[in-house]
Amino acid sequence: MATVGIVMGSDSDWPVMRLAAEALAEFGVDFEADVVSAHRMPQEMIEYGARAAERGLKVIIAGAGGAAHLPGMLASVTPLPVIGVPVPLKYLDGMDSLLSIVQMPAGVPVATVAVGGARNAGLLAVRILAAADPGLRTRMEEFQAELKEQAHAKGARLREEADRLTAEVAGGPGRAR
Amino acid sequence: MATVGIVMGSDSDWPVMRLAAEALAEFGVDFEADVVSAHRMPQEMIEYGARAAERGLKVIIAGAGGAAHLPGMLASVTPLPVIGVPVPLKYLDGMDSLLSIVQMPAGVPVATVAVGGARNAGLLAVRILAAADPGLRTRMEEFQAELKEQAHAKGARLREEADRLTAEVAGGPGRAR
Amino acid sequence: MATVGIVMGSDSDWPVMRLAAEALAEFGVDFEADVVSAHRMPQEMIEYGARAAERGLKVIIAGAGGAAHLPGMLASVTPLPVIGVPVPLKYLDGMDSLLSIVQMPAGVPVATVAVGGARNAGLLAVRILAAADPGLRTRMEEFQAELKEQAHAKGARLREEADRLTAEVAGGPGRAR
Amino acid sequence: MATVGIVMGSDSDWPVMRLAAEALAEFGVDFEADVVSAHRMPQEMIEYGARAAERGLKVIIAGAGGAAHLPGMLASVTPLPVIGVPVPLKYLDGMDSLLSIVQMPAGVPVATVAVGGARNAGLLAVRILAAADPGLRTRMEEFQAELKEQAHAKGARLREEADRLTAEVAGGPGRAR
Amino acid sequence: MATVGIVMGSDSDWPVMRLAAEALAEFGVDFEADVVSAHRMPQEMIEYGARAAERGLKVIIAGAGGAAHLPGMLASVTPLPVIGVPVPLKYLDGMDSLLSIVQMPAGVPVATVAVGGARNAGLLAVRILAAADPGLRTRMEEFQAELKEQAHAKGARLREEADRLTAEVAGGPGRAR
Amino acid sequence: MATVGIVMGSDSDWPVMRLAAEALAEFGVDFEADVVSAHRMPQEMIEYGARAAERGLKVIIAGAGGAAHLPGMLASVTPLPVIGVPVPLKYLDGMDSLLSIVQMPAGVPVATVAVGGARNAGLLAVRILAAADPGLRTRMEEFQAELKEQAHAKGARLREEADRLTAEVAGGPGRAR
Amino acid sequence: MATVGIVMGSDSDWPVMRLAAEALAEFGVDFEADVVSAHRMPQEMIEYGARAAERGLKVIIAGAGGAAHLPGMLASVTPLPVIGVPVPLKYLDGMDSLLSIVQMPAGVPVATVAVGGARNAGLLAVRILAAADPGLRTRMEEFQAELKEQAHAKGARLREEADRLTAEVAGGPGRAR
Amino acid sequence: MATVGIVMGSDSDWPVMRLAAEALAEFGVDFEADVVSAHRMPQEMIEYGARAAERGLKVIIAGAGGAAHLPGMLASVTPLPVIGVPVPLKYLDGMDSLLSIVQMPAGVPVATVAVGGARNAGLLAVRILAAADPGLRTRMEEFQAELKEQAHAKGARLREEADRLTAEVAGGPGRAR
Repeated sequence: MATVGIVMGSDSDWPVMRLAAEALAEFGVDFEADVVSAHRMPQEMIEYGARAAERGLKVIIAGAGGAAHLPGMLASVTPLPVIGVPVPLKYLDGMDSLLSIVQMPAGVPVATVAVGGARNAGLLAVRILAAADPGLRTRMEEFQAELKEQAHAKGARLREEADRLTAEVAGGPGRAR
Repeated sequence: MATVGIVMGSDSDWPVMRLAAEALAEFGVDFEADVVSAHRMPQEMIEYGARAAERGLKVIIAGAGGAAHLPGMLASVTPLPVIGVPVPLKYLDGMDSLLSIVQMPAGVPVATVAVGGARNAGLLAVRILAAADPGLRTRMEEFQAELKEQAHAKGARLREEADRLTAEVAGGPGRAR
Repeated sequence: MATVGIVMGSDSDWPVMRLAAEALAEFGVDFEADVVSAHRMPQEMIEYGARAAERGLKVIIAGAGGAAHLPGMLASVTPLPVIGVPVPLKYLDGMDSLLSIVQMPAGVPVATVAVGGARNAGLLAVRILAAADPGLRTRMEEFQAELKEQAHAKGARLREEADRLTAEVAGGPGRAR
Repeated sequence: MATVGIVMGSDSDWPVMRLAAEALAEFGVDFEADVVSAHRMPQEMIEYGARAAERGLKVIIAGAGGAAHLPGMLASVTPLPVIGVPVPLKYLDGMDSLLSIVQMPAGVPVATVAVGGARNAGLLAVRILAAADPGLRTRMEEFQAELKEQAHAKGARLREEADRLTAEVAGGPGRAR
Repeated sequence: MATVGIVMGSDSDWPVMRLAAEALAEFGVDFEADVVSAHRMPQEMIEYGARAAERGLKVIIAGAGGAAHLPGMLASVTPLPVIGVPVPLKYLDGMDSLLSIVQMPAGVPVATVAVGGARNAGLLAVRILAAADPGLRTRMEEFQAELKEQAHAKGARLREEADRLTAEVAGGPGRAR
Repeated sequence: MATVGIVMGSDSDWPVMRLAAEALAEFGVDFEADVVSAHRMPQEMIEYGARAAERGLKVIIAGAGGAAHLPGMLASVTPLPVIGVPVPLKYLDGMDSLLSIVQMPAGVPVATVAVGGARNAGLLAVRILAAADPGLRTRMEEFQAELKEQAHAKGARLREEADRLTAEVAGGPGRAR
Repeated sequence: MATVGIVMGSDSDWPVMRLAAEALAEFGVDFEADVVSAHRMPQEMIEYGARAAERGLKVIIAGAGGAAHLPGMLASVTPLPVIGVPVPLKYLDGMDSLLSIVQMPAGVPVATVAVGGARNAGLLAVRILAAADPGLRTRMEEFQAELKEQAHAKGARLREEADRLTAEVAGGPGRAR
Repeated sequence: MATVGIVMGSDSDWPVMRLAAEALAEFGVDFEADVVSAHRMPQEMIEYGARAAERGLKVIIAGAGGAAHLPGMLASVTPLPVIGVPVPLKYLDGMDSLLSIVQMPAGVPVATVAVGGARNAGLLAVRILAAADPGLRTRMEEFQAELKEQAHAKGARLREEADRLTAEVAGGPGRAR
């Protein structure tokens, strides 16, 4: 039984949106993924949102690009929290997607993440679920500790690189480049 | 019987959208105006769009601001041409509204006009209707001729103002300001 | 006899604009395509617009990039509906083209579609023509139904991919990446 | 005992952020509000975030403007969901605030709402809490039904205004303006 | 006999454009000012441009806002240098006007000045005319010297204000504000 | 003896700026090209501008990218018309270059062309010189006529392509894509 | 004897730039303020920068708006650190000023602060001077501690306001607004 | 013993940030480089900043992308000058990074350089250190002289290229392209 629904307007969004799925899978959160297009199947989209809570979903993650209506429309027909992922298209670097998702009117919120930030959408869903699941919160804390460890390891490698650079560049008078 | 439906997400959009209504009224085109909110009454919004053609509407004009989903959602459930008016909100000068309306995915077009350009939405509806109504086309041509006349009259007044300015500014050596 | 005129400032716009032509051809709508440059042949451009209605055209689709003047200038000399396609150039992602087309002054509307959205320009022309052609409207409704079918098929494939992903990613404790 | 923490960098953000507090109060959700500045009291800010979960908070709402670091910094020290509100400053219409909040790196999500969208931040917190509180979800559904009723009422008033407008504007030949 | 033509799409642009006229008058350059609208009187606009050179004009200054087509269209029908002034409208701070004027395709240049920079348009026209008029160049050099004098005078006043400020602010330990 | 000076901050701007040189060469206008950096050789830059008129230059074309100060600085020390070319850098698509060049304060104009629009800078210089050179103006008019011929030729080829497309796409019922 | 030079292109920038002067005065740092215009007195501007170090200045703060060339030009003629303040003009909210100041080419840095951020320019100058002045660094640390105290005091007031709000808003079922 | 600390949120920023290190090495300034992530190790980041001055660092250079919090957070916990480098990410060309770094609130300045401008960050650090180090200032002046020499050399090569171009392009009547 899926706890999180990951939906997108077209399978062309999957290379971005699968990062949300991977994050959920890493935390052992059950999810479903589907194409639910606001513009190509509006009635089914409405029904998907309207039935999401009774089907047992706790969070919906919706990705969309351009005039990105899917996250906001779903949020209008469900009481569940909806996370929106602005998918960048060929032009405008996702700025159109971002504004179309985040600038929702008062009354109908969408929890928006960064352009192309589907992994963070998955992690935000985990945080939301963890509010009522102490075990999941512990795993999130472990995850955050692991992020720190990885950053430490990167720092060690970087310090070595910097030492090499210092050795290479003769520390003589500044050379204009 | 209304030929054009003018809809908007909230009555706060009316001061902008009434310019579309006025344009239609000037051309004697019957219209209806209503609040149809994509986010606050999504199912009714879908039904409005789905029944528009059978109710006899020929064109829909939809105004919306911010994450402006109304024009695109209506376009997804009707075969009629939908004209979108980006309504500017308090911040961002309507750029969010514009991108949310115009950047529709392939398959579902919205005919977008300028930020706050509701009068042009009405005039575009007239042009669309005039494609099958020679009388209406004639009136549009008369309207365009009248625009020209008004511009001529403005030019006459401007030439007088320019003459006054020349007289006022002593045509001596350039004075830095 | 052509019903829709597709014009552009240069043949370098054709790779974008041919999508409009394809959409019209799919619906069996007769069209003509030509280079009509606002900046390189202004007088001929004016004449193209001024004679469009009497030649039997019902809709004009005009594509242009940068300081994109063609759609607006044609709209000023014809009572027909003019659809503008912002063609993206090498820099600025078509934002200049979009603003130059959509921000028309009151009195002279251009029905603007997305940056590079020529296919939607063609589909919008079909919707406009369908307002007076029940057969064409029926085909548009069939087309919309087909869009839905395609989205359903994509959903089926996506659900399979999501299942594979779930199997691949060990659902253990979240791993930072 | 507070369930939601509403924090901001300065009390000058309160006129915007109090809309979040009002939304929570309407739903009977306990909250606390405080000034927690990432830039003026960074150590206390870190401690606020690090202790939030053990103190019983379930959600943090953080508002900030300009180089808006508060939401993201809190998200980095708590496993709780953090909602970010871009507060618009005197210049740039909140675009700087929005990008500084939403564009978080992979690993540390912030649930971003619209520029100045503090009311939606409160409503999003309610949705998150409702995921584990059936009574609260029912109230959210009632709230959504009430939004619909209000929109209907606005529609009725708008239809009357439109009728008045039709009567006022002589439906004669189009008059250029 | 006018040497410079100042044209604009509407007399509502005159409060901006009159600064160009004043600059020309200060240098004793004869000019004419008129409403020449690309969108409301396209054929007359073409004729204005096409006849400008034979009528004795040496430079055209054209102001326009939004989808600002006037400068570029005039440049396409005259061999004269055309100076474009982006007039800011109610929304978008003139960014649409700027891009619509400056982003001209190769072959048809428009000499663009700042948003609202009509005074500089007049001064640029003077520089262009001065290329073949030694007397006018001398006056431009005098004008530039006067600009320097004015800046010097402003500096003197500013140094006094700074002295007062130093006296007012007790030079004690920094006070946070 | 050079009539037009083409300068740029670095030889890395030459691939863009040589288009200005080519345009001048095509019209038989003598030019010089040089590296004159506002930031790397400010005193020489000032001297280049200050001596330009007495050396016989009639127009200066200056290209620069990013914080593009060269055109404006030259304009401040010469009475000659200065044409600015915004050179796009690796990021921001030349928007920084454009604003840094065009937004000059009142008193010191720069004639700005499109991002990367060096060819138009050359053509604008020709138009400026042609104001006092009937032979050059005639050549500009011939050039404009040739632009029209080329556009006509492109139109002929495009009409053939459109015919092929019509033949290829079966004009059956619209196929969703 | 002044340690910091505060310069600006016009006395109209003083209302913004005096915040830099006040910050310096609060820390007991001697400064001078003057009008030094890159565009109206370029030679004097160059001389101001070239002589700044020998005159004993340690830091230059330069404010400018629009095509804001002053900070970058000064940086090109002095080895001192130059702090740039983007002054917002009537249009574009200072985005032009920001990009014109910050996007300097490699070799010539300008330390840029926020749009209108003159107070921070003063504080940054203090930090730079404090690098070689232990007493000044101590005062900066005291200043930072005072910022924290002020934020604490604001927090206390805000908590009271939040309590009042909770009491006012009946914590009943959510009311749509 | 390091005088300058170069830090970044991830080693993926090193290809940009190493340019800062190279500049420092060229001037013989000791530096350290490390990964210090505001979001992945916030407590260590705070400690890095809080201990920087006592460890003998004089300047901190911090690079970050997207919601770039590192420079501002470090500035809030150290009295040292902090230089921020906006690192461009995959989308938005570094505009998000720039605004997140430069738009700091009053009280906590960050000295911001261009998008990707790490080399200038290093050179700015040298200028800051040179304020109290006459030898270093002399080297900076030598560096600036060398920049000038390089520009001169580039000018010589460019003049040759321009001569070749003049020879190639037949100086006949202008040819439209």
